[in-house]
Amino acid sequence: MIALQCRECQRQYPTDLSYVCEECFGPLDVVYDYSKLVVKRETFEDRPKNLWRYHELLPIEDKNSIVDLGAGYTPLHRADRLAKRLGLQNLFIKNDTVNPTYSFKDRPASVAVSKARELGLSAVGSPSTGNLASATAAHAARAGLPCYVFIPFDIEPAKVVQASTYGAEIIAINGTYDDANKLASQAGELYNLGIVNGNIRPYYVEGSKTLAFEVCEQLGWIPPDHVIVPTGSGALLCAIRKGFYEFERLGLIKSNEVKISSAQPVGCSPIVDALQQGRTSVTPVERPQTLAKSLAIGDPGDGEFAVKNVRESGGFGEKVNDEELRQAIHLLASTEGIFAEPGGVVSVAVLSKLIDAGRIDPDELVVCYVTGNGLKTPEAISIEGIQPAVVEPKLEVLAQIIRR
Amino acid sequence: MIALQCRECQRQYPTDLSYVCEECFGPLDVVYDYSKLVVKRETFEDRPKNLWRYHELLPIEDKNSIVDLGAGYTPLHRADRLAKRLGLQNLFIKNDTVNPTYSFKDRPASVAVSKARELGLSAVGSPSTGNLASATAAHAARAGLPCYVFIPFDIEPAKVVQASTYGAEIIAINGTYDDANKLASQAGELYNLGIVNGNIRPYYVEGSKTLAFEVCEQLGWIPPDHVIVPTGSGALLCAIRKGFYEFERLGLIKSNEVKISSAQPVGCSPIVDALQQGRTSVTPVERPQTLAKSLAIGDPGDGEFAVKNVRESGGFGEKVNDEELRQAIHLLASTEGIFAEPGGVVSVAVLSKLIDAGRIDPDELVVCYVTGNGLKTPEAISIEGIQPAVVEPKLEVLAQIIRR
Repeated sequence: MIALQCRECQRQYPTDLSYVCEECFGPLDVVYDYSKLVVKRETFEDRPKNLWRYHELLPIEDKNSIVDLGAGYTPLHRADRLAKRLGLQNLFIKNDTVNPTYSFKDRPASVAVSKARELGLSAVGSPSTGNLASATAAHAARAGLPCYVFIPFDIEPAKVVQASTYGAEIIAINGTYDDANKLASQAGELYNLGIVNGNIRPYYVEGSKTLAFEVCEQLGWIPPDHVIVPTGSGALLCAIRKGFYEFERLGLIKSNEVKISSAQPVGCSPIVDALQQGRTSVTPVERPQTLAKSLAIGDPGDGEFAVKNVRESGGFGEKVNDEELRQAIHLLASTEGIFAEPGGVVSVAVLSKLIDAGRIDPDELVVCYVTGNGLKTPEAISIEGIQPAVVEPKLEVLAQIIRR
Repeated sequence: MIALQCRECQRQYPTDLSYVCEECFGPLDVVYDYSKLVVKRETFEDRPKNLWRYHELLPIEDKNSIVDLGAGYTPLHRADRLAKRLGLQNLFIKNDTVNPTYSFKDRPASVAVSKARELGLSAVGSPSTGNLASATAAHAARAGLPCYVFIPFDIEPAKVVQASTYGAEIIAINGTYDDANKLASQAGELYNLGIVNGNIRPYYVEGSKTLAFEVCEQLGWIPPDHVIVPTGSGALLCAIRKGFYEFERLGLIKSNEVKISSAQPVGCSPIVDALQQGRTSVTPVERPQTLAKSLAIGDPGDGEFAVKNVRESGGFGEKVNDEELRQAIHLLASTEGIFAEPGGVVSVAVLSKLIDAGRIDPDELVVCYVTGNGLKTPEAISIEGIQPAVVEPKLEVLAQIIRR
């Protein structure tokens, strides 16, 4: 890591707590001196099976700063039964439901809380639609730092219980995620908090790159043809593209022609709408309404950059409604044994829709990122009739149930 | 694997669907010819990071039968902050909350469903207090086999939603786990179902041994001094002891003097009661009543064998009440960032009690097995006051919340 650099005007800054360009107010990104980085495929072989195996490409200087709960290196699951159902040959699920706090957010949170420790901050926090709240809180607990999370009042109860059990102070806002985000940002400044996706954001997003690194390594150092990414703020999608770029730049993969598609829910699809309408600008959604609450970010911070990345990669944007999300949850669980939340499975729902529209070649090697756990949202999954009738413990009742 | 062998009279049987000795009605165990097994520490090094890395010691003949969702090789988490709080030097948490269906039950379920496939069975099932239901259902989904799970009517809602989402048929019994167990066993016979913890039980329990194997390997091939095991049927505890024995027998660890302690909840502690009262026989609990519903097994199948194993190893039995379970959940989450259910964290609660009673030396290397995920039981964790007050998104409200 050599500097922070403005995404718009390229001005460079030291690697401290800056996150916005003083000149043009563009966002800052971490840049590395790739020419000095000597890594080979073998470099990673005997490393721990978590995201820190790629530490040369993560923005932490001192290994003693690392706050690790074991995030990353989650299973890349060959999904033959699902593939057959959808008419594909080579489908994989990247199962990030088994991270330490059960969503992909453990990746950026692990990096950001490590950075907070490295920068000597005495407390951390985050605005969150739910998953980041627990990821931040758990890593803060592991680091022994106080943690403040800012959530919209109406997120799923299990997510609130989880985050507060790690000891975080929960600040439930009478408003949307965007309101929570604004308040967290102000609180960061006033109370000198490290806001993981605010003033620590340049470092934070680097954690999500590892979702590209791992897929390449797990496929035997061959990148997929097409990946489908659940999209809220757009940060994950951009980070994944950067990951593929870096692996190519370092010679770890031969070429990078990965199509990256963005998956959003109807009810909060500002990035997909821009893609489908041929716009470069993203129009915020004022009142997101979707079952996929973890993606209910109306004013996506990396929206326009995400649109650009999808277009450049040759991917698509597609959106699905609540019913399609519920169906995808059941389809993925019943074919592959992976239990996801609506926001985590939107990639699978969109894949199905892209296939129906003839936009996926049956031979393409496709990876769906599945980013959050179904136990976080049982009320979203439990549709009419899922609660079983109670029967007496008598053999004769089974004749109606077991028909074989 | 050479045979199934009666634990009581040592009579041997072929490795098919037998599980009870025809002579003496003793339970059958899998036996291996250790003298023919050539494995070294290096044998396992480049293997996949899941329980199948130990396939020589698992009862599946044909690797093509394996049904793998990535169970096992979960993090062994050095718990320095928790250790300090408790006054220990060397404490580790074996975090089985991050298995594919979020409990340790994925281990035996993966082995049992693999065996069902190897034996050519066309459907599987299990009685369950909740966690095994999902573990069986998910592995059945992965294998494309129909699945029937038998649960007491009053288990936690998230567990029911999860298991049914994998596509399992849920049979909710107006009765206890013991009633569900009996009915499942009869159904297995009548409908030719592979009941993973019934007629496939000898193979099933082998999966749990890997919790001993992994701890040894993760500690650099040195066994811990003391392990604490959440105990329901007793099968897990017995399997863990067998695991340590086998690793010593094969020369993978130098000696096996691991103390094994049993942790149960007040309200269902038949094994701990036998241990504390110096009995060899276990008195069933007719109506279990505990927050730790996953351990509410009143008539434990391996109860007496578990009592024997604890005594022989030099370990203890201890029980904790609901309030101590809730406190342990918060303690583990807020010090180490691990979120567990009551039945999963009973080991940590018991550790605390054993330390208070002076039964643990501060220098002992202790491993607590944490076997199930907190997201499965949010209602058990959510105590008065955990739901935060909703505030307006205004900076001034924070003065009351962020006191720094």
